[in-house]
Amino acid sequence: MRKILVIGAGKSTAVLIKYLQDKSVTENLHITIGDISLENAKKLEANHPNTTAILLDVFKSDSRKAAIKNADIVVSMLPARFHIEVAKDCLQYNKSMVTASYVSEEMQALDKKAKEKGLLFMNEIGLDPGIDHMSAMQVLDRIRKQGAKVVLFESFTGGLVAPESDTNLWNYKFTWNPRNVVVAGQGGAAEFLQEGTYKYIPYHKLFRRTEFLEIEEYGGFEAYANRNSLKYQSIYGLDDILTLYRGTIRKIGFSRAWNTFVQLGMTADDYTIENSENMSYREFTNSFLAYSPTDSVELKLRHYLKIDQDDIMWAKLIELDLFNPDKKIGIPNATPAQILQKILMDKWTLDEGDKDMIVMYHKFGYEINGEQKQIDATMVSIGEDQTYTAMARTVGLPVAMATLRILNKEITLTGVQIPIQEQVYKPILKELEEYGIIFKEKECEYLGYNPNRVTG
Amino acid sequence: MRKILVIGAGKSTAVLIKYLQDKSVTENLHITIGDISLENAKKLEANHPNTTAILLDVFKSDSRKAAIKNADIVVSMLPARFHIEVAKDCLQYNKSMVTASYVSEEMQALDKKAKEKGLLFMNEIGLDPGIDHMSAMQVLDRIRKQGAKVVLFESFTGGLVAPESDTNLWNYKFTWNPRNVVVAGQGGAAEFLQEGTYKYIPYHKLFRRTEFLEIEEYGGFEAYANRNSLKYQSIYGLDDILTLYRGTIRKIGFSRAWNTFVQLGMTADDYTIENSENMSYREFTNSFLAYSPTDSVELKLRHYLKIDQDDIMWAKLIELDLFNPDKKIGIPNATPAQILQKILMDKWTLDEGDKDMIVMYHKFGYEINGEQKQIDATMVSIGEDQTYTAMARTVGLPVAMATLRILNKEITLTGVQIPIQEQVYKPILKELEEYGIIFKEKECEYLGYNPNRVTG
Repeated sequence: MRKILVIGAGKSTAVLIKYLQDKSVTENLHITIGDISLENAKKLEANHPNTTAILLDVFKSDSRKAAIKNADIVVSMLPARFHIEVAKDCLQYNKSMVTASYVSEEMQALDKKAKEKGLLFMNEIGLDPGIDHMSAMQVLDRIRKQGAKVVLFESFTGGLVAPESDTNLWNYKFTWNPRNVVVAGQGGAAEFLQEGTYKYIPYHKLFRRTEFLEIEEYGGFEAYANRNSLKYQSIYGLDDILTLYRGTIRKIGFSRAWNTFVQLGMTADDYTIENSENMSYREFTNSFLAYSPTDSVELKLRHYLKIDQDDIMWAKLIELDLFNPDKKIGIPNATPAQILQKILMDKWTLDEGDKDMIVMYHKFGYEINGEQKQIDATMVSIGEDQTYTAMARTVGLPVAMATLRILNKEITLTGVQIPIQEQVYKPILKELEEYGIIFKEKECEYLGYNPNRVTG
Repeated sequence: MRKILVIGAGKSTAVLIKYLQDKSVTENLHITIGDISLENAKKLEANHPNTTAILLDVFKSDSRKAAIKNADIVVSMLPARFHIEVAKDCLQYNKSMVTASYVSEEMQALDKKAKEKGLLFMNEIGLDPGIDHMSAMQVLDRIRKQGAKVVLFESFTGGLVAPESDTNLWNYKFTWNPRNVVVAGQGGAAEFLQEGTYKYIPYHKLFRRTEFLEIEEYGGFEAYANRNSLKYQSIYGLDDILTLYRGTIRKIGFSRAWNTFVQLGMTADDYTIENSENMSYREFTNSFLAYSPTDSVELKLRHYLKIDQDDIMWAKLIELDLFNPDKKIGIPNATPAQILQKILMDKWTLDEGDKDMIVMYHKFGYEINGEQKQIDATMVSIGEDQTYTAMARTVGLPVAMATLRILNKEITLTGVQIPIQEQVYKPILKELEEYGIIFKEKECEYLGYNPNRVTG
């Protein structure tokens, strides 16, 4: 039996384990699931004959090394900062490794040694990063082979709630790490390229500069710019491209309302609020507004941010209980972002039976034979339940498929890699279709940034 | 002769040296001016018999130590980060020391040793910090001695251009370090107290939450909140105060127009702009606006920030040449803040003959015998020319006066201190009046935050 060690039994691992278990007889696999919680590991083991759950604390090097030494290949589903310990052991014991995380500098530094030993450390092979790389490169390579010059690439991804579970005014619930949502966009201006010009959006304007998207059957979406759209420019071979933009998808109207929090200062994470523990939601809101002996918190906020009383944005704030004088924050020494997260989790936590939804949208603009053309590719994936979520499926399946193909030597790369080569993306995207992860392509008229052909 | 060593012959040292030279005969003083530029030091020496200019590089410890050893007292007018080397030598050679800078942690750590040796390291005795401490403590101590309970303290300072030199639409020129003006307010929310409630203003709202001030003969001013108004709360003995606010003074309308730069993202200093060197002012402005094949940079900006064409704010932007396609930035790898500074320096540099102006405004609200009262204290100081500026006067004179009093043992404190004790502020404020630095006090009705007695 070929032994696969999966470290980390978190949210995104369920579908990955299920895939490997389903293949375990035909592919002759034994799966070991190691987690700091044996209970979590046992849940995924699910009494499957070819699976063993073990207690694995990644900081206890003896047991970690023993488990890695005993495996044929290692999958790390730990938080990104913990991969490096696993990677070093993989080098020592000559094991290839797979993660869904961004390549850290430390990981990249192992490239040469991994190559020398003929090992593959495949990273960024989840959803985003992961399926985005693969689905983009498949189209880019194809049109470039036809002789096209790529002039525009825009790529958008969002983790949302499925239409049937979309029950609040924000059209949003937390389907992943809430903290990442609260602090999204912070840490510097968003930089991207539009028609050959570098453009910069400061954080406090990010949610007012959205792009609109339309997906058949699913209606209208919007996207705000990711911080660095240019990160993969050279890696994708797009050095001469005119427009390059990556964004995060929300339902239309989310960003406009979210901007309220940004403008008030509620998303700040670099200082703590005095007396946060005993503060009410109303007091928290009031701490961002000037003192008045007569005016209500409500009116002060509406005036400060110029919100009409019949604006849907206002109803969104009311829905969150932002003016409730009785609800207490209950967190000592909390930053505004931590408090806002608490307030949002009251309302945006998935109910039992709620399903999530992943949406991805790529636009490819290109010139071929003197003509300008555009291909739009969209993918929507809806979760089954709160274990087999769309997020767990789209993160876990590519990891599992890559792991098996590395084991089977169908993927022959070595070193520290991300999935941008045909030998990786082609078979995996094809197999993902069997699991309902399908990109629909559509040829459109290329309109660039002048969709209405305005001339004056 | 008593020997005073002044290290640093920068902008703020001219008045300080002049004061000491004028006193040198009656007080039996010899002044040594050490600077990394002997030329600068010689300028201040001005062939005065009791003065010697020397070359002094603060990083060359031999010559630094020799100069300090040879002095009776040391004044450091270096940038704040260089004081610590001087302070350590002062400890070694048993010299007291005076600076106009904020007490750093490193400086504070010398407190115990300085006390043991009977030395005084007097800091924060310039303008702000300095005259603000002294003038505030004088009133606070006086009203508290009368039995008052202080409920409100607001303190505002500004370095501006004198009315007779106020020749641009912004009513502002650079009279001090331009960079500090460009990045003012960055690095976290402004925190203060209003009627017992902690209030927070994020950077991107700072310039839209100004307070208005009126100074007799000088008209209307505005102030935006400093980052930490609460820093001196305990030091001033104001732990139970209801309202505590510190701000920076500008002429009315400055902040509203400055907010344009903040909103666009032009004050950011945490990333560099691509191709900044060859960029025009117009291209720089356009890099913060969405691409359009048809709309002008002007119209895009007006629409983005909702500026009416006849708004004076618009004229302020035009005055700065922000849309000029011919002027080049000429700085490689520049941050937006560095570029904005360049653009502003074209227009806001003092002309020959221009004079500066310092404005300080304190409000003290208090309760005494069941009554609520308020004292407003204001000080305006106008420079003579571009050497004897109001800034150099208000920074240099208190430093010089403190130095002489320490030498004369009229100030008997030891350790690391700031000028909040009566033995320091009383004689120095009195002597400052001889130099035209006079606080005008006015008793007003205490209105707190309900000046119009609104009730409903």
